[in-house]
Amino acid sequence: MQSRLFSFLGGATGDWRVTELNSIVGETLPTVSHVDILPHEPDPSALARASWHLRGITSNERYVTRPEKEELTRKQPGLGRCEATRAALIPIRKSAAWWALPQDERRRVFEEQSNHVRTGLQFLPAIARRLHHCRDLSGSEPFDFLTWFEFAPSDAAAFDDLLAQLRRSPEWAFVTREVDIRLEREPRAD
Amino acid sequence: MQSRLFSFLGGATGDWRVTELNSIVGETLPTVSHVDILPHEPDPSALARASWHLRGITSNERYVTRPEKEELTRKQPGLGRCEATRAALIPIRKSAAWWALPQDERRRVFEEQSNHVRTGLQFLPAIARRLHHCRDLSGSEPFDFLTWFEFAPSDAAAFDDLLAQLRRSPEWAFVTREVDIRLEREPRAD
Repeated sequence: MQSRLFSFLGGATGDWRVTELNSIVGETLPTVSHVDILPHEPDPSALARASWHLRGITSNERYVTRPEKEELTRKQPGLGRCEATRAALIPIRKSAAWWALPQDERRRVFEEQSNHVRTGLQFLPAIARRLHHCRDLSGSEPFDFLTWFEFAPSDAAAFDDLLAQLRRSPEWAFVTREVDIRLEREPRAD
Repeated sequence: MQSRLFSFLGGATGDWRVTELNSIVGETLPTVSHVDILPHEPDPSALARASWHLRGITSNERYVTRPEKEELTRKQPGLGRCEATRAALIPIRKSAAWWALPQDERRRVFEEQSNHVRTGLQFLPAIARRLHHCRDLSGSEPFDFLTWFEFAPSDAAAFDDLLAQLRRSPEWAFVTREVDIRLEREPRAD
């Protein structure tokens, strides 16, 4: 069975070299030179070497409708494309007010007001994405979501445009912490 | 901050004495005499003593609308009422087909077809309930949900009626494992 749980280790080694690490809102993360991604919990020695450790789990979709899900499935590329040598890791935390909203109101903010899916679809298939949920891993996770994006250098400006659109949407009024980490894939040793 | 993560330990000790433990569908759990509930992960010695260990985390609602949420909040009692000396712990796992449905179709099965909230509301304030999510605690949890119910002995028949209504609903066609554990509170030593 494919793993649903992924660990992101910030430190001195890893497949991805950090080019920028900035807080958008709230507390930042310590600067590191690399991020390593593991499809499981890290072992104690990897954890001891890391400056920080974030983890998240892929899960069922929380907001999409059938037509949205089908369009996303049809258009979204997988991770690991050769040309996709740029990446971003964007950990986000949302406010207690967001989580207290009933499902229908969260959906309304997410899509009817903020066009979250519709905006994302404009950037497919250029930008690959994997969403990891953190909030229900334990009662004390620092973030609610970790989103991992991969794209070609030629699509880096489009990616900035995608983030700018999302960040000015009503949904982002509920974001209380956001860190924006940009990365480049280290050359493969093969 | 109040804990969201709860552990249920089946074994020889605990505040709740098991009166019945039956599989409704799928693999059962080992028979035990007691269940202990902890508002955190168990320590290694408690874990070593237990016959089984289930854990879950309370979270945001996944399906309810604003009017449903308000009606639930207004009518539902808290846990720990003196007269509520009977309880049930019902661990459930749903199929991959359920989790592959988009959000709107899960909602439609859950409420428009199965009246899950409307059925539950009929039994308020008699039956107190706390829902714990397990599926996103890790990639390998044995159940997706643990629901804990508390009620007075005089409401035991009503509780059976609630379960019967839910179990014959279209939503339950997606349930692949369900264990029904009934309990009585041990007299308090005070």
